[in-house]
Amino acid sequence: MNYAAFDTYLKENHDRLIEDYKDFVRQPSVAATGQGMIEMAAIVARRLAGLGFDVKVVPTEGNFPPVVWAELGDGPRELLIYNHYDVQPAEPFDLWESPPFEPTIRDGKMFGRGVLDDKGELVARIHAIEAWLKTQGPLPFKIKWLIEGEEEISSPHLHAWVERHTDWLHKPNGSPLDGCIWEFGGYTESGRNKLTFGVKGICYVELHAKTVDHDLHSSLAAIAPNAAWRLVWALSTLKDQSERIQLDGYYDHVRAPTPAEEEILRDQPFEEAAMKAKWKVDSFVTGVTGYDAVKRLYFQPTCTIAGITTGWQGTGAKTVMPAHASAKIDFRLVPNLTPEIVVDSLRRHLDKHGFQDIEIKLLGGYRSEISDVTAPIVQASKNAVRRVEGVDPEMELLSPGSGPMYSLSSFIGGVPVVCLGFGHPDARIHSPNEHILLDYYYKGMRHFGVFVDEFGKI
Amino acid sequence: MNYAAFDTYLKENHDRLIEDYKDFVRQPSVAATGQGMIEMAAIVARRLAGLGFDVKVVPTEGNFPPVVWAELGDGPRELLIYNHYDVQPAEPFDLWESPPFEPTIRDGKMFGRGVLDDKGELVARIHAIEAWLKTQGPLPFKIKWLIEGEEEISSPHLHAWVERHTDWLHKPNGSPLDGCIWEFGGYTESGRNKLTFGVKGICYVELHAKTVDHDLHSSLAAIAPNAAWRLVWALSTLKDQSERIQLDGYYDHVRAPTPAEEEILRDQPFEEAAMKAKWKVDSFVTGVTGYDAVKRLYFQPTCTIAGITTGWQGTGAKTVMPAHASAKIDFRLVPNLTPEIVVDSLRRHLDKHGFQDIEIKLLGGYRSEISDVTAPIVQASKNAVRRVEGVDPEMELLSPGSGPMYSLSSFIGGVPVVCLGFGHPDARIHSPNEHILLDYYYKGMRHFGVFVDEFGKI
Repeated sequence: MNYAAFDTYLKENHDRLIEDYKDFVRQPSVAATGQGMIEMAAIVARRLAGLGFDVKVVPTEGNFPPVVWAELGDGPRELLIYNHYDVQPAEPFDLWESPPFEPTIRDGKMFGRGVLDDKGELVARIHAIEAWLKTQGPLPFKIKWLIEGEEEISSPHLHAWVERHTDWLHKPNGSPLDGCIWEFGGYTESGRNKLTFGVKGICYVELHAKTVDHDLHSSLAAIAPNAAWRLVWALSTLKDQSERIQLDGYYDHVRAPTPAEEEILRDQPFEEAAMKAKWKVDSFVTGVTGYDAVKRLYFQPTCTIAGITTGWQGTGAKTVMPAHASAKIDFRLVPNLTPEIVVDSLRRHLDKHGFQDIEIKLLGGYRSEISDVTAPIVQASKNAVRRVEGVDPEMELLSPGSGPMYSLSSFIGGVPVVCLGFGHPDARIHSPNEHILLDYYYKGMRHFGVFVDEFGKI
Repeated sequence: MNYAAFDTYLKENHDRLIEDYKDFVRQPSVAATGQGMIEMAAIVARRLAGLGFDVKVVPTEGNFPPVVWAELGDGPRELLIYNHYDVQPAEPFDLWESPPFEPTIRDGKMFGRGVLDDKGELVARIHAIEAWLKTQGPLPFKIKWLIEGEEEISSPHLHAWVERHTDWLHKPNGSPLDGCIWEFGGYTESGRNKLTFGVKGICYVELHAKTVDHDLHSSLAAIAPNAAWRLVWALSTLKDQSERIQLDGYYDHVRAPTPAEEEILRDQPFEEAAMKAKWKVDSFVTGVTGYDAVKRLYFQPTCTIAGITTGWQGTGAKTVMPAHASAKIDFRLVPNLTPEIVVDSLRRHLDKHGFQDIEIKLLGGYRSEISDVTAPIVQASKNAVRRVEGVDPEMELLSPGSGPMYSLSSFIGGVPVVCLGFGHPDARIHSPNEHILLDYYYKGMRHFGVFVDEFGKI
């Protein structure tokens, strides 16, 4: 490739590309509430069509936010790219230093909901492909780009969509695609880019407790059942204070890392002191530290209360006894532990402990995935990072985060996946004041441009 | 008294009095949020001054909603009336069939937040006194009327106010007042009026758990502490599933009813089947029933979760790990169990169970009170009800609800208290669709008018 021409294009178009980036962030697209989803899908589709992609906006089952599917390029080699155009809710708004959907640049950073997760990597790849097409000519292989709109709510309709479009997700001769570039990726605390090859699974449920017909005056609490107490008692049985999940047989599905996995795990970046300082904690849960903390983070399942809603939540005292209480629970899954096992174990656990009245509502989930670290796409990604950064990337076996990687890897014939992106550890994704470092965004576009060159040569 | 003239006055002024009533309800006055408090105090003060009362709007400590103090009448006998002009929050708004602050009449009922609790009894007494003054002449004794603005948030500043105005709350010669008519009162399911002579105490606190500096992505849950879990674990130690409160020594402060108390308790109305039907439950907590349920309701303390707030509470899934979680807890107190004992026991309990990090914020509280059922004001009240209804009222030793009765009874020399009012069991106070039966309001005004006559004669 003519790297100088590519690089010059990005520099000369800097201001326009930043405005384009901001346009993506300005459009709210909150899958949890449905806000702006159709509008956002249309923006993505228009932008890709403008680059020459053959774009389809494809409904999901039940008419939830559609999948944007885009194809460009020719050749025997086929690359899948996975991104999502939905973002996390921006609440609590009052903790944002600038409005979440008005992207704002301060001190070399751009702030906004979704500015990294996942509009950042989506936009950087669009910009890199634009620069490639303008300065290098056609793509040296075929890109198949899947951009969904429900990743932040656990992709409830993606797997069924994949099942329906399995032919698109294979080559014309039926063999698996040559690789997949995943939605995220990024830098370590010390500024080294890192490549990631897997994700933990997730199972996200709501629990509902209902007791009396309507909220009662709390003076009746000596004889009337309280939904908040039912929920608290039920929750307290799920995990004990030593952080051990109490579902029967749960840990039978948890395996230790293999020797090959351990080799990567031991070397991969884990910046314990920096994390503790940022979180303002003296120790991790259970007091775990060092490599034990790494193994815990990547190879142990979790059971997280992500929210509880019940009764009076305003200022001051309201003497009310709640008739309804609900909690959102986020289970992170290790290999062999599937969402189906979680829901089944959870139901049996609640029943066994006398909580037959507690309703479980499954909001979404996916299995964990650890992809092949020896695949050619891994070498192409390493080469790309080294050519831009002058130094090899770190290798991270898997992310503690989750995503529908199983559906787009093992499920479609074992497509090797690489997370190649430009996030940084303090980006506050999912929190107020989400931001990117502009410098990393510039590098991210260059990584992807050089990756196109490298992947074209494998 | 000339009852016919009194009665005719109420009939002839019906429409104006209903409009006056609505004006009280239209003004929001939510102590929990501070909405409309000053405006409401001004409405009350203006209305009483219009009847000839000598009115003072007296600040509480720290400039919280003021106490309205009004005096009218002469004579050696002095009656205290206690009401409050604040109301409970109206949330959740979407469950109201008509807007909470637009009083609406349907099917012989008037709906609105505070239409009973406590603007109903306040307004009925104002209307009765107006009718008395217009048809009977001056009051036969002195009324001292205390109307506070923080009852629904546990009257955090009333006791100190009482301490500062103890001279107003005694006769000029220093002896105790002759009786007190309490804010509420009402009817049984079967339509009998009942008189009540006491209240349970209350202690209302907020618990706060804080762990990390800011909400984190839930993928980090294997190593980062979660405030929601801290709170759930702490809460679950406070009361077990058999409904036994677990604070050390707590039940040492709980006494059985005395034989004299039992005599009233056994006879007092307790409409178990009606309550269960309305709440849509098959049984009370612990399976208690009959007289055991009565003793439990009136002579056992409670520990009620009135609300929990943490993490994501919107629609769908947000993969967040809360840095902060809080719960509102409402303890109802029996004789000998004071708010100070609760806060102290709670702190010791949390510390003992390893929850030194959980902060306790006291929002308010008062002791229980059971007043003298043999006092002359009790006989005057019974006579008043019988003259209007043609049948004696039921006697209820105490209400399971709470109020600052100790401060206005035992604390000021043992003033005997009677709850004489017109609420009905399905009034949904503190819930959406709070309402009164207009027929009971008409009777309530007449009770109070005849009570003035009877109390003047004791």
